[in-house]
Amino acid sequence: MEDKAQIQEAIKVQGEVVRKLKSEKASKEQIDEEVAKLLELKARLGGDDGKHQFVLKTAKGTRDYNPKQMAIREKVFNTIISCFKRHGAETIDTPVFELKETLTGKYGEDSKLIYDLKDQGGELLSLRYDLTVPFARYLAMNKITNIKRYHIAKVYRRDNPAMTRGRYREFYQCDFDIAGQYDAMIPDAECLKIVHEILSELDLGDFRIKVNDRRILDGMFAVCGVPDDKFRTICSTVDKLDKMPWEDVKKEMVNEKGLSEEAADQIGEYVSMQGGMDLAERLLQDHKMSQSKQACAGLSDIKLLFSFLQLFQVTDKVVFDLSLARGLDYYTGIIYEAVLTQAGVAAVSNEAQNGANAEESVSVGSVAGGGRYDGLVGMFDPKGRKVPCVGVSIGIERIFSIMEQKAEASAEKVRTTEVQVMVASAQKNLLEERLRLVTELWNAGIKAEVMYKKNPKLLSQLQHCEESGIPLVAILGEQELKDGVVKLRVVATREEIQHC
Amino acid sequence: MEDKAQIQEAIKVQGEVVRKLKSEKASKEQIDEEVAKLLELKARLGGDDGKHQFVLKTAKGTRDYNPKQMAIREKVFNTIISCFKRHGAETIDTPVFELKETLTGKYGEDSKLIYDLKDQGGELLSLRYDLTVPFARYLAMNKITNIKRYHIAKVYRRDNPAMTRGRYREFYQCDFDIAGQYDAMIPDAECLKIVHEILSELDLGDFRIKVNDRRILDGMFAVCGVPDDKFRTICSTVDKLDKMPWEDVKKEMVNEKGLSEEAADQIGEYVSMQGGMDLAERLLQDHKMSQSKQACAGLSDIKLLFSFLQLFQVTDKVVFDLSLARGLDYYTGIIYEAVLTQAGVAAVSNEAQNGANAEESVSVGSVAGGGRYDGLVGMFDPKGRKVPCVGVSIGIERIFSIMEQKAEASAEKVRTTEVQVMVASAQKNLLEERLRLVTELWNAGIKAEVMYKKNPKLLSQLQHCEESGIPLVAILGEQELKDGVVKLRVVATREEIQHC
Repeated sequence: MEDKAQIQEAIKVQGEVVRKLKSEKASKEQIDEEVAKLLELKARLGGDDGKHQFVLKTAKGTRDYNPKQMAIREKVFNTIISCFKRHGAETIDTPVFELKETLTGKYGEDSKLIYDLKDQGGELLSLRYDLTVPFARYLAMNKITNIKRYHIAKVYRRDNPAMTRGRYREFYQCDFDIAGQYDAMIPDAECLKIVHEILSELDLGDFRIKVNDRRILDGMFAVCGVPDDKFRTICSTVDKLDKMPWEDVKKEMVNEKGLSEEAADQIGEYVSMQGGMDLAERLLQDHKMSQSKQACAGLSDIKLLFSFLQLFQVTDKVVFDLSLARGLDYYTGIIYEAVLTQAGVAAVSNEAQNGANAEESVSVGSVAGGGRYDGLVGMFDPKGRKVPCVGVSIGIERIFSIMEQKAEASAEKVRTTEVQVMVASAQKNLLEERLRLVTELWNAGIKAEVMYKKNPKLLSQLQHCEESGIPLVAILGEQELKDGVVKLRVVATREEIQHC
Repeated sequence: MEDKAQIQEAIKVQGEVVRKLKSEKASKEQIDEEVAKLLELKARLGGDDGKHQFVLKTAKGTRDYNPKQMAIREKVFNTIISCFKRHGAETIDTPVFELKETLTGKYGEDSKLIYDLKDQGGELLSLRYDLTVPFARYLAMNKITNIKRYHIAKVYRRDNPAMTRGRYREFYQCDFDIAGQYDAMIPDAECLKIVHEILSELDLGDFRIKVNDRRILDGMFAVCGVPDDKFRTICSTVDKLDKMPWEDVKKEMVNEKGLSEEAADQIGEYVSMQGGMDLAERLLQDHKMSQSKQACAGLSDIKLLFSFLQLFQVTDKVVFDLSLARGLDYYTGIIYEAVLTQAGVAAVSNEAQNGANAEESVSVGSVAGGGRYDGLVGMFDPKGRKVPCVGVSIGIERIFSIMEQKAEASAEKVRTTEVQVMVASAQKNLLEERLRLVTELWNAGIKAEVMYKKNPKLLSQLQHCEESGIPLVAILGEQELKDGVVKLRVVATREEIQHC
């Protein structure tokens, strides 16, 4: 049992934190987060008393979306889905939970973050951790060898939430994947074209798409003298290069992972390289790199990729970057990641510095990532048949955060409904006439509203229009009814027209 | 441990069932369901051997949506959401799980069907059981007293699944609710208008919307001599009238619930009544019914409701039906339910008779329901402040099932992509030209595809168009490139046009 006095002290402190944030006009999310902590503390005290104190909150690391957030979410989804459809993608959906064993052995260390369902008799279930494993399960189960699909849905991770930075335990993933045996690099290039289109259309500021290839990384490790059994662990250290300087990465390689200083230095030389098709060509001539068949295969594919990217007109944003490693084990070929380089990032990283360690805010700019994974589907097929796949995941939660901040900063109001006209009355006792008119409008497919009052005041009807951004108001009065007309007013300008 | 021979016997039998269904060309869903059972049996055998046999299936009672199902789902959602937006609704979203205690005490008996999450440290969580309780929690938590919102999302019930009849453990709910203190029956009538619009637009065949009022039911029970403490249980027996004949309902009341034969007979007289505003007027004069203040309040509101429904032009489908009871405890005023009366029902109940007891198929026509619940939000408010609410839930899963069956029965093919044009080539070595042209189309916002092959055959490109319903194909050849033109062919008619 907890010490009551101790909790009461904690409640006092936490109450101060909330008051301070409120007085400083901190972001709503940040305040909500601290209020949630306060409520949790109070609940613990309540429980101690033996009295039931009802906690009115959402589960840790989750949030409701209010209408304004939903309006922004809808806009972002529309842009992304339009792009996926423009490229001929179908969509599928899978259940929110899978058999526990479907997820087993797919996420390595991170498996501890999987939400399990309680054993209530029957199958053991877990909430999905991403959309890629369910996709692979779906392909294997239905013996599908060719599909271009997108899937937008929520996934679940028992991670340490950082909600002010858009990191939740329940969050959306937004995946586009091409499965099938095709000629090299054509679908891979289309994935990058799609990222380019989406980030351009969402207007999040300038961005860069880094590309690399797992085979180049592995080849590089080999020629630099990394022992075979250390490829993975060294790769995950390289992956930290966007979060920490080379010196620290090197230290980790040498001191923690036991790599020779010489090997580390050679890796350091390579991972500082960035370029385009020219860099791939140069490395194909590199006396060391060219010793690795794997690296050469990767480099040739990078060249081919860039030739397609030129045709797709997206080379302006794409960089071949040997420091890009990406964490997931299942990648087998090309990998990529899109980062915001300007405005968008600034907004988010400011936020981040309020609450958390500054280290993480550096990489906050990553908004899309993916790569080729030719082996995953085979893990599900009883006969191990492979289905080559390449895909991209759009970092939609981060994009939501940026769009929400942009909306807050902008003078323009976010509308949460699409109502075109409000049917109002200037005098009393016109409810029937209002209902009759709004029915005519609805039946004609026009988005219209009426107040649910017998005798609303004209002012309150007009106020509702201004608050919710309704552009037109149809005003009924005795005179108009006699004349058989409707007065239509433009809310913004107060201009009036009579309609028969 | 299970008897191996017994399981092997069960596998044999189950295998026969599957073969038989396949030979009879049973519906895909039905076959899938039986195959799932077969796989489960095989898995049990596998487990017994100590060998790991991977089961490739979705969790019991859940399903994947394939692209065709998703296309139908999208169409249905678009119709429904357009209607909600036409009526000025906003939308919100809530997490898929809530604190366990948020759901506690809201569902009576049915609480045993709630999915709990495993206790992995931290809060105790449960998957949401409906969208109404999270909505009430959201209103109370954010102190919202006025909102018109819709929410479309999946909910979870550990029920006995009957997937061939559209009953799943994971399924969509599609709710529209109006919260706020307004003049009587105006929002209530709008909910019915919305049901009328949606069912008309979805074109599911003829339908009827039954309405009643909890106060009329309670008043009726009182004047018929039902003891106060039996209102609820008698109400839930009345609720079965759409599934069983009056004689059986009466038997349950008298034999199981201990009601007097006389009281039951009086109820029987009332619950056989159906009508419109006239019936409400007649009952207001009824010497017995008029003794109950509650009933009179309900009957006056039914009259008022019908007057609004006339203005909304929907009385053709609405019936005041005293046998409508609806199960949920939280209704406090008007209640309603929409049922399909023709074609749609026939299709589904045929399905149902294949697999299950015929009793349930009778009520399969219910496709929407709702009512007024003025007390629910108050259960969440620390000070018990009430927010009056009225809402409707569209039975979207049933509608999906009907639409899927209609699509299967119809000659028209369901398209799963929206691609307008396929960029093809008639000769070899034109990959670059194809990619260049498809880029132009994408950049112009045109939905276009290209095959991911260096040298695809023209025939296979045309076949892909026919299979996926792409209406146009842009054909590139040496001659066209020389002339600087593109040949555009209408796939259906083979008509060709040259474009510069």
